[in-house]
Amino acid sequence: MDNLELIKSLSQPTSTKIILLVLDGLGGLPDPGTGKTELETARTPNLDGLARGGTTGLIDIVGPGITPGSSAGHLSLFGYDPLRYNIGRGALEAVGIDFDLEPGDIAARGNFCSADSDGLITDRRAGRIDTGECRRLCGLLDGMTINNTVLFVRPVREHRFILVMRGEGLKPDIGDSDPQREGVPPREVNAIEPEAEFTAETVRGFIGRAKESLAGNHPANMLLLRGFSTRPDFPAMTDVYRLRPAAIATYPMYRGLARLVGMEILETGSGIEDEFETLRKNYSGYDFFFIHIKGTDSAGEDGDFERKVRVIEDLDRIMPELMHNRPDVLVVTGDHSTPAVLKGHSWHPVPVLLCSKWCRPDGAIEFGETACSSGGLGRFHATSIMSLAMAHSQKLNKFGA
Amino acid sequence: MDNLELIKSLSQPTSTKIILLVLDGLGGLPDPGTGKTELETARTPNLDGLARGGTTGLIDIVGPGITPGSSAGHLSLFGYDPLRYNIGRGALEAVGIDFDLEPGDIAARGNFCSADSDGLITDRRAGRIDTGECRRLCGLLDGMTINNTVLFVRPVREHRFILVMRGEGLKPDIGDSDPQREGVPPREVNAIEPEAEFTAETVRGFIGRAKESLAGNHPANMLLLRGFSTRPDFPAMTDVYRLRPAAIATYPMYRGLARLVGMEILETGSGIEDEFETLRKNYSGYDFFFIHIKGTDSAGEDGDFERKVRVIEDLDRIMPELMHNRPDVLVVTGDHSTPAVLKGHSWHPVPVLLCSKWCRPDGAIEFGETACSSGGLGRFHATSIMSLAMAHSQKLNKFGA
Repeated sequence: MDNLELIKSLSQPTSTKIILLVLDGLGGLPDPGTGKTELETARTPNLDGLARGGTTGLIDIVGPGITPGSSAGHLSLFGYDPLRYNIGRGALEAVGIDFDLEPGDIAARGNFCSADSDGLITDRRAGRIDTGECRRLCGLLDGMTINNTVLFVRPVREHRFILVMRGEGLKPDIGDSDPQREGVPPREVNAIEPEAEFTAETVRGFIGRAKESLAGNHPANMLLLRGFSTRPDFPAMTDVYRLRPAAIATYPMYRGLARLVGMEILETGSGIEDEFETLRKNYSGYDFFFIHIKGTDSAGEDGDFERKVRVIEDLDRIMPELMHNRPDVLVVTGDHSTPAVLKGHSWHPVPVLLCSKWCRPDGAIEFGETACSSGGLGRFHATSIMSLAMAHSQKLNKFGA
Repeated sequence: MDNLELIKSLSQPTSTKIILLVLDGLGGLPDPGTGKTELETARTPNLDGLARGGTTGLIDIVGPGITPGSSAGHLSLFGYDPLRYNIGRGALEAVGIDFDLEPGDIAARGNFCSADSDGLITDRRAGRIDTGECRRLCGLLDGMTINNTVLFVRPVREHRFILVMRGEGLKPDIGDSDPQREGVPPREVNAIEPEAEFTAETVRGFIGRAKESLAGNHPANMLLLRGFSTRPDFPAMTDVYRLRPAAIATYPMYRGLARLVGMEILETGSGIEDEFETLRKNYSGYDFFFIHIKGTDSAGEDGDFERKVRVIEDLDRIMPELMHNRPDVLVVTGDHSTPAVLKGHSWHPVPVLLCSKWCRPDGAIEFGETACSSGGLGRFHATSIMSLAMAHSQKLNKFGA
């Protein structure tokens, strides 16, 4: 039995509340000078106090040695094994700009590109036009109807955009138009499976009309499409966990992922304070909150150890506001490690802190990688985070008689 | 997805180098007098220094409570789940004498035995003839061609030998001739599956001719065969990990296992110094080295606590020669425990030490079972050793977007 099926068979709605606070890329590596990681360097009296009263551990997001991408990291925290629950590239790009994909929609990643008078691709990225120009060009193409199918064209960044098709009978089994190299024409879009012929024809119709609309817009006088895929059909958290789940995230990608697992998305501002204020205002309406904090990962990716430390300290300073809501369970963790010394995601296990009045306490007196490595939760797979949160909020029935 | 498939989808060749140093049967149990294991008793300043700079843990080779054989132990360390990747008994015996099995070959274990004038077996082991006599008898039988099939007969030890058949259309699905008891004649070798009839007929032909050759050689005047099996078709490490892997081992069994997973076998001498010298000479030609040290296991099997301690100390003394190569990742571990007090393999988890500049350090200040049990790698399955080594040498791409 899949873990989600097990949990679904045991979960029951209660009045208790869970907060899952995700500090993106939280895990780190030591500064060579001090021997302490970002989290261990940060002055975090509030998190340390929670560690003293709670229990800690280390989680593997995918498995030992495997560095997770952001979508894999979050799916794992939400209890969805990322080796089993996949998102197609087009759908992920749509999710990444918070586009509300519906079941049956087909999404593709798009590039504006440059073509010469013979139709050969001269620049796959159209000279990396700026995002404003991308937005203008998407406006020219957005909203067509072809074969009773509505086509949405929305900007991502620079030369990148998404195409989403909505209508009856669409199938994702069609080939890319993007040949992934220059000096050749785009590929004709063909069905890989016979039942996708209608979809391929619709895409060909779109490409034909887009060519006409873009004709005078060199360097962006053509487009390329790849990664056709559907909205993944994941079990909803409302159904698996019987929760009323809400997401608070400043970045569109994380709102998009939360939407895919059935969370409601709460409007918020751009800072941690805004997110905590959104939590306070909406606290009575839901029993599960996913709060996403991006700054830790961005600082790690930039190799800025000090800034990552500061983001953690800023968060720590306002933790009392969050705790003021008196959640029955609070989990503080990350979706992967992003050590500043590596300037990128890494495979190192991620510290986790769980607070609840039903915790079995461990000896941890602070929240940090070293303390967590001997914490009472031990080292475990991230897909068990939700099971533990549900258990500690007494939302899971006994298994077996 | 199988772990090997996952790793294969993520691995990339780089210039970094990994050394996997296996001390056979490394794990131990305490001497009742001192409360310290063999590894904890040994004076190991170099390994302790590596533990201080690196990270440690404990590995389960098959699973908690399961005592592994040597082949299961090594396959697990190489990343091949021993519950899934099997080696037939005949193939294992061939591997054990370093016989270079080719795909399609069929191998069997053989015994020289004694038979009376009625053809009834009077001694299944032919009075345990010595290995020299075994070699002479194998020489009488080696190299026949029957049904266009070449038959190799090679000595193992005492009355034991291997038969390997090489030709077209051979199948391993044939029954044993060995009845596993005395006072009865050997069984006729029959096909278990119809397509193995040709193979069975070839074996019957061999047995007929062998009987004639052995007729005057009492007590070894007959032979018994069992465990017909093919060379296992394991994914190659070159393909899964995209490594150029080399093996340095003084015992044929470990060279044979390394060959089965696609390692190149380097000629070496009989001592640890010889093995380290082989490493030094070949260091530029490969990016993965498996070095096998047998003495720890042999001493444990003999119940010789002190000798096992000495082998570990001898190894420790020359560790600087190995570290002089400056590997990007060094893993020191064992393929199972062989506690001297048990005089045999055991199920106890095995200490592991991983050194790399990308380690997250733990508090370990020495390399020993107790220190490892609170090490930063935690307790994990041996099949993750290679994933961790690959990650720490930055040979694995990110999983998912």
